[in-house]
Amino acid sequence: MEVSWETSVTDSINTIYLLFSAYLVFVMQLGFAMLCAGSVRAKNAMNILLTNVVDAVVGSLSYFLFGFAFAFGGGPDSNPFIGTNYFALKDIPSTSYDYSFFLYQWAFAIAVAGITSGSIAERTQFSAYLIFSFFLTGFVYPVVAHWVWSSNGWLHPGSTSLLFGSGAIDFAGSGVVHLVGGVAGLWGALIEGPRVGRFDAFGKPVQMRGHNATLVVLGTFLLWFGWFGFNPGSFNKILVSYPDTFDQGNWTGVGRTAVTTTLSGSTAGIVTLFGRRLLVGHWDALDVCNGVLGGFVAITSGCSVVEPWAAIVCGFFAACVLIGLNIIALKLNYDDPLEAAQLHGGCGAWGLIFTGLFAKEEFVIQTYDSGNVGVTRPYGLFLGGGWGLIGAQVAELVAIVGWVSVTMGPLFYILHKLRILRISTDEEIAGLDISSHGGYAYRADPEETGPRMYGEYLRFQDQS
Amino acid sequence: MEVSWETSVTDSINTIYLLFSAYLVFVMQLGFAMLCAGSVRAKNAMNILLTNVVDAVVGSLSYFLFGFAFAFGGGPDSNPFIGTNYFALKDIPSTSYDYSFFLYQWAFAIAVAGITSGSIAERTQFSAYLIFSFFLTGFVYPVVAHWVWSSNGWLHPGSTSLLFGSGAIDFAGSGVVHLVGGVAGLWGALIEGPRVGRFDAFGKPVQMRGHNATLVVLGTFLLWFGWFGFNPGSFNKILVSYPDTFDQGNWTGVGRTAVTTTLSGSTAGIVTLFGRRLLVGHWDALDVCNGVLGGFVAITSGCSVVEPWAAIVCGFFAACVLIGLNIIALKLNYDDPLEAAQLHGGCGAWGLIFTGLFAKEEFVIQTYDSGNVGVTRPYGLFLGGGWGLIGAQVAELVAIVGWVSVTMGPLFYILHKLRILRISTDEEIAGLDISSHGGYAYRADPEETGPRMYGEYLRFQDQS
Amino acid sequence: MEVSWETSVTDSINTIYLLFSAYLVFVMQLGFAMLCAGSVRAKNAMNILLTNVVDAVVGSLSYFLFGFAFAFGGGPDSNPFIGTNYFALKDIPSTSYDYSFFLYQWAFAIAVAGITSGSIAERTQFSAYLIFSFFLTGFVYPVVAHWVWSSNGWLHPGSTSLLFGSGAIDFAGSGVVHLVGGVAGLWGALIEGPRVGRFDAFGKPVQMRGHNATLVVLGTFLLWFGWFGFNPGSFNKILVSYPDTFDQGNWTGVGRTAVTTTLSGSTAGIVTLFGRRLLVGHWDALDVCNGVLGGFVAITSGCSVVEPWAAIVCGFFAACVLIGLNIIALKLNYDDPLEAAQLHGGCGAWGLIFTGLFAKEEFVIQTYDSGNVGVTRPYGLFLGGGWGLIGAQVAELVAIVGWVSVTMGPLFYILHKLRILRISTDEEIAGLDISSHGGYAYRADPEETGPRMYGEYLRFQDQS
Repeated sequence: MEVSWETSVTDSINTIYLLFSAYLVFVMQLGFAMLCAGSVRAKNAMNILLTNVVDAVVGSLSYFLFGFAFAFGGGPDSNPFIGTNYFALKDIPSTSYDYSFFLYQWAFAIAVAGITSGSIAERTQFSAYLIFSFFLTGFVYPVVAHWVWSSNGWLHPGSTSLLFGSGAIDFAGSGVVHLVGGVAGLWGALIEGPRVGRFDAFGKPVQMRGHNATLVVLGTFLLWFGWFGFNPGSFNKILVSYPDTFDQGNWTGVGRTAVTTTLSGSTAGIVTLFGRRLLVGHWDALDVCNGVLGGFVAITSGCSVVEPWAAIVCGFFAACVLIGLNIIALKLNYDDPLEAAQLHGGCGAWGLIFTGLFAKEEFVIQTYDSGNVGVTRPYGLFLGGGWGLIGAQVAELVAIVGWVSVTMGPLFYILHKLRILRISTDEEIAGLDISSHGGYAYRADPEETGPRMYGEYLRFQDQS
Repeated sequence: MEVSWETSVTDSINTIYLLFSAYLVFVMQLGFAMLCAGSVRAKNAMNILLTNVVDAVVGSLSYFLFGFAFAFGGGPDSNPFIGTNYFALKDIPSTSYDYSFFLYQWAFAIAVAGITSGSIAERTQFSAYLIFSFFLTGFVYPVVAHWVWSSNGWLHPGSTSLLFGSGAIDFAGSGVVHLVGGVAGLWGALIEGPRVGRFDAFGKPVQMRGHNATLVVLGTFLLWFGWFGFNPGSFNKILVSYPDTFDQGNWTGVGRTAVTTTLSGSTAGIVTLFGRRLLVGHWDALDVCNGVLGGFVAITSGCSVVEPWAAIVCGFFAACVLIGLNIIALKLNYDDPLEAAQLHGGCGAWGLIFTGLFAKEEFVIQTYDSGNVGVTRPYGLFLGGGWGLIGAQVAELVAIVGWVSVTMGPLFYILHKLRILRISTDEEIAGLDISSHGGYAYRADPEETGPRMYGEYLRFQDQS
Repeated sequence: MEVSWETSVTDSINTIYLLFSAYLVFVMQLGFAMLCAGSVRAKNAMNILLTNVVDAVVGSLSYFLFGFAFAFGGGPDSNPFIGTNYFALKDIPSTSYDYSFFLYQWAFAIAVAGITSGSIAERTQFSAYLIFSFFLTGFVYPVVAHWVWSSNGWLHPGSTSLLFGSGAIDFAGSGVVHLVGGVAGLWGALIEGPRVGRFDAFGKPVQMRGHNATLVVLGTFLLWFGWFGFNPGSFNKILVSYPDTFDQGNWTGVGRTAVTTTLSGSTAGIVTLFGRRLLVGHWDALDVCNGVLGGFVAITSGCSVVEPWAAIVCGFFAACVLIGLNIIALKLNYDDPLEAAQLHGGCGAWGLIFTGLFAKEEFVIQTYDSGNVGVTRPYGLFLGGGWGLIGAQVAELVAIVGWVSVTMGPLFYILHKLRILRISTDEEIAGLDISSHGGYAYRADPEETGPRMYGEYLRFQDQS
């Protein structure tokens, strides 16, 4: 009936680590908001800013009330498909989860709808947004999280996993978070169709530049900052030692994860810089930003289980995937203002495959079996780890694409048929801010031109 | 004469926790700067940015020299009203306080003047600003902090507190920080009167939109991020176990505080979203931002001692308070560019009352008596805890309103009478930036319209 | 073959502390990006944003591949001048360094080129930028870091140091980081010459205001936030107790370092506020921002070894140095858009001297000898510590200026001679964004003027 010193120290250390990581992940919400705002036209800035704020506030309540329960509820009557307890944090703190774990998962949950909202930006009714984001954050995403991250999910990795004796390794969610958000966005954007004027009468793309590149860079760096919580933080506990070493533990893995994350994003950024230079003839800052993010999305699955050199490979191909999918999207007249389906969907899918190819045995056992000596399990195909892991990775990929398609596809289609998905052409041309949000995000103060207005004011006074 | 292992571990853990929380609280200064800048007209942006920077730099010196001493000085000749030692950090580190504690309190102190500067934005002389912010940060605020947060303050909570056997529970400062800043702002704004043109000849309000909604959202999210340091960080120490449990301690309380904070802000945001939709007919992003902040302000007092469900109640009524006070302010022709009196004052006052109604006995004892078994003390009225706590909460509320009114009211009035409070009408119409700060915050580069200017340049060269 | 409990706890605590500090230092990259963007004209915003992103991504790879090895490689065949192992993180984690240490140093490395890019902003070819930043981050900077921070560097401080029995104290890098970046920038700006139009035909300066003061303030606060990782984080380990005390350790030093950092920056900000008010006649927000940064740069060398009151002295003179150098720069027609040579070079040099004058014996021994009883070594000249330390500080100052001059000077000169350093006058007048980066950073949406455009759209429809 006394809390032991060891428990106090361990719980304090792990809570600091997890909570501050959660705070960093929360910064990603701000990063998305700035990235999205800068990437749309000024007339729709207020709209996309509001959707990002609403993601956070609506997501907080829905994830508190039932999202967390669907994802991590694991009582005696739980099952591999969906969680069934901890609604409204009942029975939390439990022996498994403290409040800090909920907060960390909450920060993940509110990110998903933000990804999707990028795909359907500049043309979606706000009420439709409220409906799909509530459904996505509260149900579609938590179910996938349960599959992969809950200890009784059917894709959960572990040396006793049912799936190919391996389970899928999606450490911080290339699949669970990014692929889910990207596929949802793909369906939304497909059903809505391109923005007015995005492609001309001959199907040729017309450039629609965002209104503020500074915001895009601000958002990208904030996302990078937040990713240090997203990936390294996904260990959940830092005070776990590895018995197969004499001085290593999760603290080593956490540091290595920060390094692999950085290297993948950086490589993808460089490849995009030079790749786009060859393709379009100038050095494009916005492309580099998206490249960096693509590298992060891809490494998110395997960040904790691959060597730094492999992270460079990961980032290299992530940039190729992104560049390639963007070319294909243009050809197919697919319009996604934030490239969300290409970036989060495409690079997320590549990340799942990459992990199946390059996961290192030692790191997998350390990450998922606390480095227990004597454990054997499948690992990366290219490192000689057999087909078990890559099989499970493909299974996760297929399952996510399927699940999100059969849930979000029909939802968007119904909203479309009810005529509450897309705004009218008139409203779209006028911009969402003036039609739905009471005015523009920016106001070039007429009095800003001080001297002149000031003079007029004096003149006005003279007349009176 | 040797530092024990247990001391080293405990101090390291608690210092990491407190310092990084302090860094987060510092981010709130940045959040306020962006929120304020975006909420004023472009012609006054430079002015309000400068006041936020000056808050931090002037506040650092004045709080170092005497503010901290007034707040936490507690030597043998100390008293319940004001602290008397630790001037210029003399005798720090002491057995009670290390440098990290000073830094944490410093980050709080510089926030107060930022709140007040919002109320009097767009019409105040910069020199007046320097005077009031020095007085507020260096004296008015620290005295209140001493009452509630110093162990010998007359409002300090604890099982041996003199006030109703309870003391006031204002965990992170709904009263000490926000109500103080809000009441100071109220007096400043009342004495200065509304901005030129804010109400027409018939007393009807004329909308004065801020110039940049993106900055408002950026500031709101940064404040949210910072609040994770403000509220959970106020435990000061994370490595404190609760004897009445077998595995809980401040680490549990810290996590729960982050959760209650999030839920209150989110609920207030949602209520404001729909409430304002009903009132004004569109989805207003800026109202939602203020709603979220109102929810945070309100929960700041009781964040550590209430259940998550109660935080939702707190946020719901915080939004109602904010919406209601804004309606009243318009009716009374009260002009507060940042709604600071309504938001920080109104929701801060509600927060004090809320805690008196909903504080849970178990959490109060854990937070303020380290969970010692056998302690009994008043707690929330609605949970059966008697009138002791709510009485102390009302006492704090009344005492703060009184103290700030009798100090800041006369100060603003004297500055007003000396004609150094408000700028002239001419300057106000021209804008503070051009009249006091050497130019506007923004410069639309004439050469930005590249091709044309470029052509002119070539023509100019030809002629020469 | 088992990780002991003490090792696990110690490594977990120190890793949390170092990694989260690294994350904060990374935020400085974002701070620089915003500060730089706001300080240049709108037509060059995209360019400078891109250079800041490229710093991070290119620096990540080059520092991973060989920069870290040059700086901290210390095998048996290592030498006092340059490190020779750990290329591509081979043999990391070692008994000396874990991944977290690499990440922390990486965040420092990518900051250096950002400083230099400020000096040569608005007129440099992007390909020249790629070359110099690769060379600076990958070679010039790591060598200096090896001298001072690697245990076998010739300037490394320690009670057994060869240099004057002292070694140089440059705790977080006033010299290693800021002076290096500033001197490199000085050579670049000198060789490139001023921007077109910066000085008129008579050599009189023409004001070239940045385009966005809000970004400057945003960047300054982000840098302040990041400096909490830069300076206090440079202890690397927080769980180190001081045997000469009964309850102190690095946790005390870390807190004190955060306090001295804050006080120096704040003092410099205040001095600049009033100093510039006297000189230019108005309250200038941007000058205050630069003053604050100058104070931070100066204290960065001695932050851990001086008393808080000395930090105020440090900040006072840092502001004087900055103001003075800016006056001289104008007189000499030296054009540095970000004042980087004056600020990082000048205040960095002052910081090295300051430490030699004011370092306190007790703190030096605690910081560099873990507070071992019985150690004696030189300390601040003004505190009676003799000439050993100040001599070593001057040696570092001279060595850095010399080394950077003989490496970066020729590099910039060769680029200049090859005509790949500066853009053409035509491009400069048009702006880098349109000439090299495919368009401007901002786009005032023509449709932003909603109603009118909307009306035209309807009219257009009627006609068809």
